[in-house]
Amino acid sequence: MTPDEFRRHGYATVDWIASYLERVESFPVLSAVMPGALRAALPAAPPEDGEPYEAILADVERLILPGITHWQSPNFFAYFSANASPPAMLAELVSAGLGVQGMLWATSPACTELETHVLDWLADALGLPEAFTSRGTGGGVIQDTASSATLCALLAARDRATDGAATERGLAAGLTAYASTQAHSSVEKAVGIAGLGRAHLRLIEVDDTFAMRPAALDDALRADRAAGRTPCFVAATIGTTSSTAMDPLPAIVEICRRHGVWLHVDAALAGNAAICPEFRQFQDGVAGADSYCVNPHKWLLTNFDCDAFYVADRGALLRALSILPEYLRNQATEAGAVIDYRDWQVPLGRRFRALKLWFVMRSYGLAGLRQHIRHHVELARRFADWVRADARFEIVAPVALNLVCFRLRGDDAPNERLLAALTDSGQAFLTHTRLAGRYVLRLAVGATYTTDRHVEAVWDRIRECATALQP
Amino acid sequence: MTPDEFRRHGYATVDWIASYLERVESFPVLSAVMPGALRAALPAAPPEDGEPYEAILADVERLILPGITHWQSPNFFAYFSANASPPAMLAELVSAGLGVQGMLWATSPACTELETHVLDWLADALGLPEAFTSRGTGGGVIQDTASSATLCALLAARDRATDGAATERGLAAGLTAYASTQAHSSVEKAVGIAGLGRAHLRLIEVDDTFAMRPAALDDALRADRAAGRTPCFVAATIGTTSSTAMDPLPAIVEICRRHGVWLHVDAALAGNAAICPEFRQFQDGVAGADSYCVNPHKWLLTNFDCDAFYVADRGALLRALSILPEYLRNQATEAGAVIDYRDWQVPLGRRFRALKLWFVMRSYGLAGLRQHIRHHVELARRFADWVRADARFEIVAPVALNLVCFRLRGDDAPNERLLAALTDSGQAFLTHTRLAGRYVLRLAVGATYTTDRHVEAVWDRIRECATALQP
Repeated sequence: MTPDEFRRHGYATVDWIASYLERVESFPVLSAVMPGALRAALPAAPPEDGEPYEAILADVERLILPGITHWQSPNFFAYFSANASPPAMLAELVSAGLGVQGMLWATSPACTELETHVLDWLADALGLPEAFTSRGTGGGVIQDTASSATLCALLAARDRATDGAATERGLAAGLTAYASTQAHSSVEKAVGIAGLGRAHLRLIEVDDTFAMRPAALDDALRADRAAGRTPCFVAATIGTTSSTAMDPLPAIVEICRRHGVWLHVDAALAGNAAICPEFRQFQDGVAGADSYCVNPHKWLLTNFDCDAFYVADRGALLRALSILPEYLRNQATEAGAVIDYRDWQVPLGRRFRALKLWFVMRSYGLAGLRQHIRHHVELARRFADWVRADARFEIVAPVALNLVCFRLRGDDAPNERLLAALTDSGQAFLTHTRLAGRYVLRLAVGATYTTDRHVEAVWDRIRECATALQP
Repeated sequence: MTPDEFRRHGYATVDWIASYLERVESFPVLSAVMPGALRAALPAAPPEDGEPYEAILADVERLILPGITHWQSPNFFAYFSANASPPAMLAELVSAGLGVQGMLWATSPACTELETHVLDWLADALGLPEAFTSRGTGGGVIQDTASSATLCALLAARDRATDGAATERGLAAGLTAYASTQAHSSVEKAVGIAGLGRAHLRLIEVDDTFAMRPAALDDALRADRAAGRTPCFVAATIGTTSSTAMDPLPAIVEICRRHGVWLHVDAALAGNAAICPEFRQFQDGVAGADSYCVNPHKWLLTNFDCDAFYVADRGALLRALSILPEYLRNQATEAGAVIDYRDWQVPLGRRFRALKLWFVMRSYGLAGLRQHIRHHVELARRFADWVRADARFEIVAPVALNLVCFRLRGDDAPNERLLAALTDSGQAFLTHTRLAGRYVLRLAVGATYTTDRHVEAVWDRIRECATALQP
């Protein structure tokens, strides 16, 4: 493909995406294809000779589209959103066009410096402590996901607790980690990966808002210490996946400090809301944390993958993850004047992901991003009011931000049927969770193009389905 | 940005990339900016109000470009290449436009099924064993990098050796891992992350082609067993980073089988060449491996990130990495009829990366991909012939594929000056390594647009620099 052919095919691809965005609302949100349907339509072997680009793009429409669950549909209310935006999409194209691999500062200084810079911008915009910026003792780095951020935080914590022995000489038995029963599954996964053993993750009980009970954390830490174990890592969640519960940071900070344990704050979804001063109180106390992560790819218009991971002491992270083989030695690194982000993550190579956060922050401005968050919070609150006003339903967790956890009063079975009916209609996609043992529907408002009429329509549909189920 | 504005800005972005590709050869390959130069040119805070897209794209040209090390330049001969291609760039745009997150089959069936399908295509095209395909007991998954593939392989190996105890109950002391002294640094990093302790990675000595000595591996395994330790993981490298040395797989397979140890084959670079039958002999014996990885993002025209990771027994990988929280439960998963790739990797979320491999395999066809590999191998061999014919130089490692390791005879210092002179000229970018204690220059031919005249020009330049240094 020559540059001129690239122009032609590039325009066609841009047109296709524009058309997709124009049509996205018209598709069933959750793909209805059967397992194996796409594979059955694909040839068993790749072609021997090249095919025209037009044929490939046509197959995206013909073969791929039916198998898409439309995360960008304004009727996507499932999980937490993975919100894309046009500037972020184009930044991703620029990143692919430049094709740089930013493992070292030297392998593209702009890739590293833009990342440091926009992560400082974001830290300041979210009201995060100075220590988390490059002006302080720590700094930020883009990870693919909060799962990877949690793993990196745990590795740094594991090393700090063992004075580097865990990485160098191997794990001794008796290291323990802590998170609430509502923490994300990635905490358990990381504890397994890092060799502590999933059985050594203590799941701390929660209160009736599904937030961690600090006294129970303190008890668990004391019990492990008394038994000769070494607590090394606490994960507090600001905005749990099931219900956006907010663990009480100030009390947890005090406990972690007293026990000398690393505190990681997982604010993957809710941290984005801190861009609005009025939603910042949820993370009061974050200055006492050792690490923190937030996913702009969830709710700040930056397409997946973009997790912003911050540490207060970059030295701890580097000690756990640095290796410098001869073939990566270079002047800039040896001089110590630059950041080499390969030492801040598990993989060696890395894409130029800072571009999309830069494009987004400049395209929308802080005011635009705040408006985006406020609108979604307002929509969720309005939806919650409607639910509260309908005696058939109950709200089962505080509506802190953009997620409403609700259910039909009574047994689980009608709720399961309600969710299935909604999803099967194709008109909206919600998912469920369990809270206090009960089956609960989740409505998360976070897709880029979701606005009033979509939330109104899904509520109408929910009521219709409920009436059909319980006439 | 409305769909129409997206069209307009999208065309402008496509034009900019086409123009970049037309000009890429004209830039100094290694960025010459000083540390901090970009950051000094950026405002200290993000804008309060949004800025026009034109201004942002203009800043890519004005501010970002000087800080780019041009991995896509035909004069990029450093490290191993990260080759992009126009179809892969456009596929990345489609992926960003669809904005799906493929953690589960249900969250976009096409994302999962296309990945399974193209990884089968690739396995067949590379002559990999049936067990590595979805038709067998294993299968393939796209990871970001070979580092992550190695980590996942090690976690599966660690679990198999301990019957799941390492992940569930925590690591017991005494697990050991093995790789040659020439293996990639990611093996040591993974051994540290997984909690074995870097000190428990045995670096096996190499022969005079820098390939692992099987007898030394056998000795190390026996010694650890005799000392009561539990060997669990051997990483063999097909094409080491320093010199593309090829560890002798058949002998290593036999040893691993005898000791009951997991064998991972890291063919990140060289595995791509197996698409040509005449280069496939390097991985003879791979059918005896437990896992394998190759990076199409290095040398198969698919832009970073795209590592194809294969396992012979998917059960072992799943046991090490699966967790199913309530909020991810769904019909398709419960029915067991689908793949959920979140259980095949460290992160939970995942981009739609299979698109780019599909676009590339269809755009070039197998014939086009073979031609690409053959051309680069031919260029490297021609370069090696020129080096051999110049008495001032020596070739210091076998030229197996597209990498030539060479040096000026004698001391290291002139070689260091030669590399600095070449790089400072901006006309080409090579990197170095150390082999048998000596400083060595590496010329890796792998950039998409590198052709005869670029290799001729860099050789002319090398000779000129050598003459200037040693008149």
